[in-house]
Amino acid sequence: MNLYGGIEAGGTKFVCMVGGGPDDIRAEVRFPTTSPVETIGHAADFFKQQAQEAHLAAIGIGSFGPVDLDPASPTFGYITTTPKPGWANTNFIGMLRAALDVPIVFDTDVNAAAFGECRWGAAQGLDPIIYLTIGTGIGGGVICNGKPLHGLVHPEMGHMLMRHDRELDPFPGVCPFHGDCFEGLASGPSMKKRWGQPAETLPDAHPAWNIEAHHIAVALANLVLNFSPRRIVVGGGVMQQAGLFPLVRRKTQQFLNGYVQSTQITERIDEYIVPPALGHRSGVLGAIALAMNFPSES
Amino acid sequence: MNLYGGIEAGGTKFVCMVGGGPDDIRAEVRFPTTSPVETIGHAADFFKQQAQEAHLAAIGIGSFGPVDLDPASPTFGYITTTPKPGWANTNFIGMLRAALDVPIVFDTDVNAAAFGECRWGAAQGLDPIIYLTIGTGIGGGVICNGKPLHGLVHPEMGHMLMRHDRELDPFPGVCPFHGDCFEGLASGPSMKKRWGQPAETLPDAHPAWNIEAHHIAVALANLVLNFSPRRIVVGGGVMQQAGLFPLVRRKTQQFLNGYVQSTQITERIDEYIVPPALGHRSGVLGAIALAMNFPSES
Repeated sequence: MNLYGGIEAGGTKFVCMVGGGPDDIRAEVRFPTTSPVETIGHAADFFKQQAQEAHLAAIGIGSFGPVDLDPASPTFGYITTTPKPGWANTNFIGMLRAALDVPIVFDTDVNAAAFGECRWGAAQGLDPIIYLTIGTGIGGGVICNGKPLHGLVHPEMGHMLMRHDRELDPFPGVCPFHGDCFEGLASGPSMKKRWGQPAETLPDAHPAWNIEAHHIAVALANLVLNFSPRRIVVGGGVMQQAGLFPLVRRKTQQFLNGYVQSTQITERIDEYIVPPALGHRSGVLGAIALAMNFPSES
Repeated sequence: MNLYGGIEAGGTKFVCMVGGGPDDIRAEVRFPTTSPVETIGHAADFFKQQAQEAHLAAIGIGSFGPVDLDPASPTFGYITTTPKPGWANTNFIGMLRAALDVPIVFDTDVNAAAFGECRWGAAQGLDPIIYLTIGTGIGGGVICNGKPLHGLVHPEMGHMLMRHDRELDPFPGVCPFHGDCFEGLASGPSMKKRWGQPAETLPDAHPAWNIEAHHIAVALANLVLNFSPRRIVVGGGVMQQAGLFPLVRRKTQQFLNGYVQSTQITERIDEYIVPPALGHRSGVLGAIALAMNFPSES
């Protein structure tokens, strides 16, 4: 039987897994993200060792970015312009290929998570769908007509320009590029700057959460209007706050104001805007799902 | 040889065509949109007559909406909740099928135009791409991973909530659902209300055009960030204004502020945000392209 490898390459940690799905996890390892040579080397060693026990048919990577997903580009498979020290222009696929003779499928962390939630999680059998993560950064992946959405680069929906109600929230935002874009207004660091304390220390009754839900709902309304997704899966640290999902759902309905006539939105929004079903493993399992889909996703 | 039929079903006029592409137009007819029975009947008569001369392999429809594109829905192929008198809940496919024994492919007017521009026009060989029309209304279609983007309903990007600079433009917008959404701020009727005269009568040097370009560029920046399209084709009456494209392109670059690192945007935006190459025939030729793609698009 074929087994598959998955790498969730995050800015603070890597997760590597071998298996065939959430009910068939053969091995899993987590380690901190240090230098590219050390970190990718560590991943390669793990898979080399695993390959001695079972044939690895392919390895999927869901990486932090920005990344180059264009197979025709000379820097295909690179992490490109990241501000993360040492990681700009990292030939991720090349370094892994130098160590391993296994087909590799490369995508963004959020496209991998979206693909995983589509295959085994909260968006099974649905298309198109969006996976959004709201934490230190904000990013989104899209599965559309059966495949992850690539393009000129890849979606950067965390930088969406926002309807910003300055009476509700005069905060100018923290994005160095766009000020009050989605990430500038609603990421963890934005909340910390806005309120002078980390988001996770703000009490449930703090007005911060109403404002946070407002900003997230503006963005979700725009995602509904732009993509008409069949489900939106929202993960990330900020979404762990109790009570945030119901607030976000109600405000999304308010902003859409009955325009999108679907009972999914008007009556069953609890099933429409949902947390990931694969929990913190959406990304690495999604990377395995991408590998299982090889070569059609390559 | 097989021929194909196309219908561009607009709120003010229908265009019906038989042919095999822009260089092979066998017959074309235009008539005003009156009642559903009369207008769809007129279209059916045209194709019945044409079918006597050559076999029609399929007919594509690009329709004003909202429409039901879900084959599993009991109202698949209907124009659903349109405010256009007499047209709400019109069984478009059903009425055509009652008159014609030909496979029918049904989509939105803007998805058809997007598909046409992809096949023969300004976006040949590119994926994903967006077709946007800015006129009496604002709407967009998307081709992604080879097919038009459907979903819960279909994209309604004309109603995107906007970063609204109220110092530049204090106008509250005209959308009955969302006030200052994209259509509320930038459609033809919005310009007329804002300036007290129709857009096409505003002189080139009028400040209206700078503000109009601003709003369009906010929306285009968001489409770039959400979809990462390989090209955006922008049609519609408002875009006929001389000088609007260069203004829109420059402001889109300004709003993105170097974040999306692609030379398509930073250096070659003249080839990235472009008018339709099929002119006023994007829609009806797109409908023919959808028909030619049957059954894979049905």
